Amino acid sequence: MAKVHLRGNHSKEKKTEFSLVRVKSTWKRKVAKKVNNDTVDCVSAAKIYEIITVKDTSWTVVSPIVFTYKVTETRDLLDPNNDTLLLGHITDPQQLEEIKNSNKPLKRFIVVDQEVYKIYGPKLTEYFESNNVLCKVLALPTTEENKSMEVALTILEEVNNFSLDRRTEPIIAIGGGVCLDIVGLAASLYRRRTPYIRVPTTLLSYIDASVGAKTGVNFANCKNKLGAYIPPTAVFLDLSFIQTLPRRHICNGLAEMLKMALMKHRGLFELLENYGRMLLDTKFQDDKGVYGQSGLQASQATRIAITTMLEELAPNLWEDDLNRLVDFGHLISPALEMKVLPSLLHGEAVNIDMCYMVYVSQESGLLTEEEKQRIVSCMVGLELPVWHEGCTMELIQKSMQDRLKHSGGLVRMPLPVGLGKADIFNNTPYEILHRAYEKWCDELSVSSDSNRDP
Amino acid sequence: MAKVHLRGNHSKEKKTEFSLVRVKSTWKRKVAKKVNNDTVDCVSAAKIYEIITVKDTSWTVVSPIVFTYKVTETRDLLDPNNDTLLLGHITDPQQLEEIKNSNKPLKRFIVVDQEVYKIYGPKLTEYFESNNVLCKVLALPTTEENKSMEVALTILEEVNNFSLDRRTEPIIAIGGGVCLDIVGLAASLYRRRTPYIRVPTTLLSYIDASVGAKTGVNFANCKNKLGAYIPPTAVFLDLSFIQTLPRRHICNGLAEMLKMALMKHRGLFELLENYGRMLLDTKFQDDKGVYGQSGLQASQATRIAITTMLEELAPNLWEDDLNRLVDFGHLISPALEMKVLPSLLHGEAVNIDMCYMVYVSQESGLLTEEEKQRIVSCMVGLELPVWHEGCTMELIQKSMQDRLKHSGGLVRMPLPVGLGKADIFNNTPYEILHRAYEKWCDELSVSSDSNRDP
Repeated sequence: MAKVHLRGNHSKEKKTEFSLVRVKSTWKRKVAKKVNNDTVDCVSAAKIYEIITVKDTSWTVVSPIVFTYKVTETRDLLDPNNDTLLLGHITDPQQLEEIKNSNKPLKRFIVVDQEVYKIYGPKLTEYFESNNVLCKVLALPTTEENKSMEVALTILEEVNNFSLDRRTEPIIAIGGGVCLDIVGLAASLYRRRTPYIRVPTTLLSYIDASVGAKTGVNFANCKNKLGAYIPPTAVFLDLSFIQTLPRRHICNGLAEMLKMALMKHRGLFELLENYGRMLLDTKFQDDKGVYGQSGLQASQATRIAITTMLEELAPNLWEDDLNRLVDFGHLISPALEMKVLPSLLHGEAVNIDMCYMVYVSQESGLLTEEEKQRIVSCMVGLELPVWHEGCTMELIQKSMQDRLKHSGGLVRMPLPVGLGKADIFNNTPYEILHRAYEKWCDELSVSSDSNRDP
Repeated sequence: MAKVHLRGNHSKEKKTEFSLVRVKSTWKRKVAKKVNNDTVDCVSAAKIYEIITVKDTSWTVVSPIVFTYKVTETRDLLDPNNDTLLLGHITDPQQLEEIKNSNKPLKRFIVVDQEVYKIYGPKLTEYFESNNVLCKVLALPTTEENKSMEVALTILEEVNNFSLDRRTEPIIAIGGGVCLDIVGLAASLYRRRTPYIRVPTTLLSYIDASVGAKTGVNFANCKNKLGAYIPPTAVFLDLSFIQTLPRRHICNGLAEMLKMALMKHRGLFELLENYGRMLLDTKFQDDKGVYGQSGLQASQATRIAITTMLEELAPNLWEDDLNRLVDFGHLISPALEMKVLPSLLHGEAVNIDMCYMVYVSQESGLLTEEEKQRIVSCMVGLELPVWHEGCTMELIQKSMQDRLKHSGGLVRMPLPVGLGKADIFNNTPYEILHRAYEKWCDELSVSSDSNRDP
């Protein structure tokens, strides 16, 4: 329960803490210390604090809302015999039984990325047909340029025409991060909250966008400026979608995986160091050829990435705590990504940011030269860019200033302190940032005459 | 904490409950039963439940978010010496002290209803000028017709241009329910959640829209189809705004006040019965003339209306429980209001719905004839319509069917069971609904040949 500051301390003030107790259909407030939890039917977790002064009367409401969502790694999600996509979000066994025994056809509204639909459209159609689902499949080009409120409203019009029951018929989103973000926002707005399901089809969204509560669209040229923190009711993860991804997009996802490794998990780092190339070659599939074991490594890597991500997100679902290890790689990269659009993918920009920060860590004495070298080599092995001429000292400084503004006056910079361990730092001197920058450029810049700051 | 159903019960399943424990900046999951809360730095209220089966691995995240908001009844809100509007939302005394001692000017973005601005514009300007506030005041026509996502986006563009700090500079909304709802939605969307403050200027929004968590805009011809459940950070209530309201709009607010009286508070009902006319005549002001005591009754009435409303909302902020006494008067009225638009104000439509329901109660043996008469007389005394030709038996039946659809298969009809007491009913037979309708028309229809259903 959050600490409630009850403002003022005057002698003429009357403060009372109330609990809320249900008697039949009516909620009644009762002075909290007089409520005996054992003898009462139903006591809410909410509280009301009343303060009466000569001047004002005020009531402070403290009301917890519990979000519950389920992330499932499964196989053969589009196999008509697998009911996960249709029923996997239902956690109450009795409700599940009732639905299975009912002969009322299920109704589902599905938004799928247009490119994904080109590949999986026939399988999707077959899946819903075999399961006798009344469905509307909306295929949309969910690109960064289309990540707008207008597209969210287009989806909402179709949802409204389809007249789904917002309590029992979740909206399903199938695609990459952009698709999942837009649909998540649309669903969160519809009737103030309609459950939705995420099915990520890219490696990046598989381990990143899917797992948390964030939804959003771009606005006024800013990434994800509008959105909500409403988690999906369920996330269904099926690695087989990854096999149709271009190689570069697998590298893109590996960058966010490496982030979790560097911040929290030495084992994952070593896995990427040793098997990264194999994961890229096999596209996270269970290869029958040269790499006999690839399926095992793939599922280990994704599992660790997801559980470490959930560890950081679950206690801080609405990002109230600004000290976030998952922000690693995200201090400079948003500005870099926007500046050089569309030349860098998200994960690529993140990796460039992380690589510079590794130099900052080493320069601060938090990483040894050898550890730094290992990390950089791992990045190169994952075919990720480790330097970019667009990432100037000026851009770095500007990003730090923006960060200060939006992070309550502290820079809250996550930095690795060894392999697979990290901490948050606020007072890294400019000299270190600058020396790290010089060294980074010296060692990794593609050409020595690129536009470096003085 | 919500009950978590962990699906499946096979012997080859491995279930683990994890707590989340913070060590320095890193969250780590620990098997819940091994965590000793006394020896650990910080344990989150969140949990992760892992289930591994032969087929799938799933993680269920349970994460509580605590909403805290403050409702303050004050006086002289726009008096330049009153800092409530600028600082009243800050509950941490240390933070408050820091701001008061800082010489950095405050920055505020204000959206105000255009009609309200015509009356209070000069006072507002003076208030912000005297307090040296960097501000942008946006006056908008916040009517039902303009309650749209387009207007919310217009506000958001201005907010973005103003570049406020989303953590320390709340957006202020001043106006009636429509204004508060649109601004609340815009703020909830901006950077996934920007704090906002509600200042209601109508009696209806004073006791109703202000107090809860709902925001919204109309969409596809449906009232509040898009929105969010994000409470304001603070609500500042000043009855003096009510003195500039037209009499009909005061009646409009009295209807929602009567709703709370009928559902939960006999004392409030008797207050409205005895002093309703006076409250109307004095417009809830402290009258110096014939009604010496009017200020006392006004503040009593609003205070009871607000506390009873908070009692029902605090434990059910996101309306997860569908059994809601505050839905009284809101089963048939939405359809009626839309059908005869713009001839009925919201509270008027609500009152017609309530009056019919009182007949249903009496016909069901829940109210005596005398109690029914007293309620109807009170409504008439408050100058509220008690019958409308647009409220046909057909409309009533259609509304009940819609209700069934959106309320999980039960009608969940709140009905008074005596004066100031109520319960929720699900099985009122059609015969009773119909007999009540006949009687209602017989006794209250304006002309006996109006379009009554057979």
